[in-house]
Amino acid sequence: MQRSKQSLGLALVGLGHVGRGFCQLLIKQKTALERRLGVELRFLWVCDRHPDKKIKNLRLPSETRVTRNIKPLLGDPRVDIVIELMGGLTQARRLTLEALRSGRHVITANKLMLATCWPELLGAARRNNAHLFFEAAVASGIPIIRSIREGLVASRIHRIEGILNGTTNYILTRMMRDAMPYKEALTQAQRLGFAEADPSLDTSGADTAHKLSILASLASGSWVSPATVYREGIERLNLTDILFAQNRLSLVPRLLGIAEINTGARVSARVHPCLIPITDPMATVDDEYNAIAVSTDAAGTIYFQGKGAGALPAASSVLSDLVDLGQLILSSAQMQLPAQMR
Amino acid sequence: MQRSKQSLGLALVGLGHVGRGFCQLLIKQKTALERRLGVELRFLWVCDRHPDKKIKNLRLPSETRVTRNIKPLLGDPRVDIVIELMGGLTQARRLTLEALRSGRHVITANKLMLATCWPELLGAARRNNAHLFFEAAVASGIPIIRSIREGLVASRIHRIEGILNGTTNYILTRMMRDAMPYKEALTQAQRLGFAEADPSLDTSGADTAHKLSILASLASGSWVSPATVYREGIERLNLTDILFAQNRLSLVPRLLGIAEINTGARVSARVHPCLIPITDPMATVDDEYNAIAVSTDAAGTIYFQGKGAGALPAASSVLSDLVDLGQLILSSAQMQLPAQMR
Repeated sequence: MQRSKQSLGLALVGLGHVGRGFCQLLIKQKTALERRLGVELRFLWVCDRHPDKKIKNLRLPSETRVTRNIKPLLGDPRVDIVIELMGGLTQARRLTLEALRSGRHVITANKLMLATCWPELLGAARRNNAHLFFEAAVASGIPIIRSIREGLVASRIHRIEGILNGTTNYILTRMMRDAMPYKEALTQAQRLGFAEADPSLDTSGADTAHKLSILASLASGSWVSPATVYREGIERLNLTDILFAQNRLSLVPRLLGIAEINTGARVSARVHPCLIPITDPMATVDDEYNAIAVSTDAAGTIYFQGKGAGALPAASSVLSDLVDLGQLILSSAQMQLPAQMR
Repeated sequence: MQRSKQSLGLALVGLGHVGRGFCQLLIKQKTALERRLGVELRFLWVCDRHPDKKIKNLRLPSETRVTRNIKPLLGDPRVDIVIELMGGLTQARRLTLEALRSGRHVITANKLMLATCWPELLGAARRNNAHLFFEAAVASGIPIIRSIREGLVASRIHRIEGILNGTTNYILTRMMRDAMPYKEALTQAQRLGFAEADPSLDTSGADTAHKLSILASLASGSWVSPATVYREGIERLNLTDILFAQNRLSLVPRLLGIAEINTGARVSARVHPCLIPITDPMATVDDEYNAIAVSTDAAGTIYFQGKGAGALPAASSVLSDLVDLGQLILSSAQMQLPAQMR
């Protein structure tokens, strides 16, 4: 992969919501992305255990081959970048490690895997001179990973606070605005496709804890295991209490993830429901929206808000990783050419 | 500059507020940044027309040489990156073009120069395989440039709306909150160091127009000249009117920059005071804070908020450019080494 590159070879694993959204966006924007990168993007492989129904209507390029297991794509020397959108832990971890060890770069949206296997994955990437990108793993369409990794690199981050789970925020919004009982609001969130396959990952605060773990690990420079994050979900919140807080006390319920990083880079992280004043910016963050406030020494507090769920916002973050990574790979490859060929 | 690099050579031009803030942050974070980049950062030159008083208390490294003109630093082959923080147009443009033409990469915070000379500067960078970075040019500490340039690359941006000038927002906040007359509020902003050297650049909306021009040019892919931006400032706003709007109509005055980009990448851009409902997120953006809402097709609307003025937020963005650029330069240089040396 260190010859002069005329193309970038891609393999996608996982054709769920986000995977199919990625295919749609990639096919739609292929020409624009190729113009930007200056090389051809070759969408070589799509891998899924049950691909048949899912690839219908996707209009994949004719060269894209469909497979049910990962061996052929990892054996294809034309593949530069593996895009892991299968979710889950065991299989995704194996794929990511094998891809990194074979010198492939990996883009993933898998917050469970990242939070749980952070040191192992980052170590494998470093040892193999490979890149691991994961903008879509936290807060979907909000470019929070690159903002922390690059934009705030010169500021010490001492606090991160956020609404990081669209499903629970959607449920709380419905309870609050429509006086809807918890169970009914959860069913509606599932119908809209916001909820994880197992809704308890959302409602127990575990998904928020995974995302907080990733943000805190990035900001502090060392792994904050999700097992060390104090965690309380929204399952036991009572509709009467919520309506009382809202109507009598002007307080609004939000499930917050909060990480405090002290000067020794020691981190204290917690996830729990909070009642916040309606004048707080986070109180206006409704439905499936996410918001994150990052407090730094030099740059002050920076606040981000945007869609935290949905296939297209996540897919657009995966594509932004692809462009970023593509530029890194190509700027490496380009310098190997004699000057007159550049 | 294409040998294997053990160090990155820096030259800073301009020792104003932001320039001195940059020196402070760089010296404070030098070790951490070097660890991150894996090479030594050599702060080789500082250039300013009247450096003597300004370098006092800065504790520059012993190897840093001070000069009153740019010739020696452009003649020094060890310089990889020129950091232009002198401001103004003519001299800054000349320096930037000469640096790019000599193959140096440039980091600048100069919105006037960027907005006015966009095609010329980007063309010079492209022709010379050099990078031009400018995170600090818009909204200081908010990583809005990299978010548009990288994070939202896969989404079509159709609207950008923002409070882009800290001084005018500070003035409007004082008029509104403290019933302070316009002139008094302006004097206070100047005393706090928020205002530009010539305050009419702020109050006339010109500074907002420059920043909007940069954002719209980035988002649309072609130059939106500030001359084509409709512009109306805050000078003629009346304290009585502002207080009436606030107290009777629940409307709050903000100076907004708004760019609309249609499908043909045609841009309509304007800057003028707006009365917005107090329930709008932008209504809570007080004092010297900035806020930007970027509306896209795939990722929805993403909202950013943070400090829009002050030496340290801007300096921290300059440093983030330095890290980003350093990684690009080094990943290019690294690939030229035989594999066993990496």
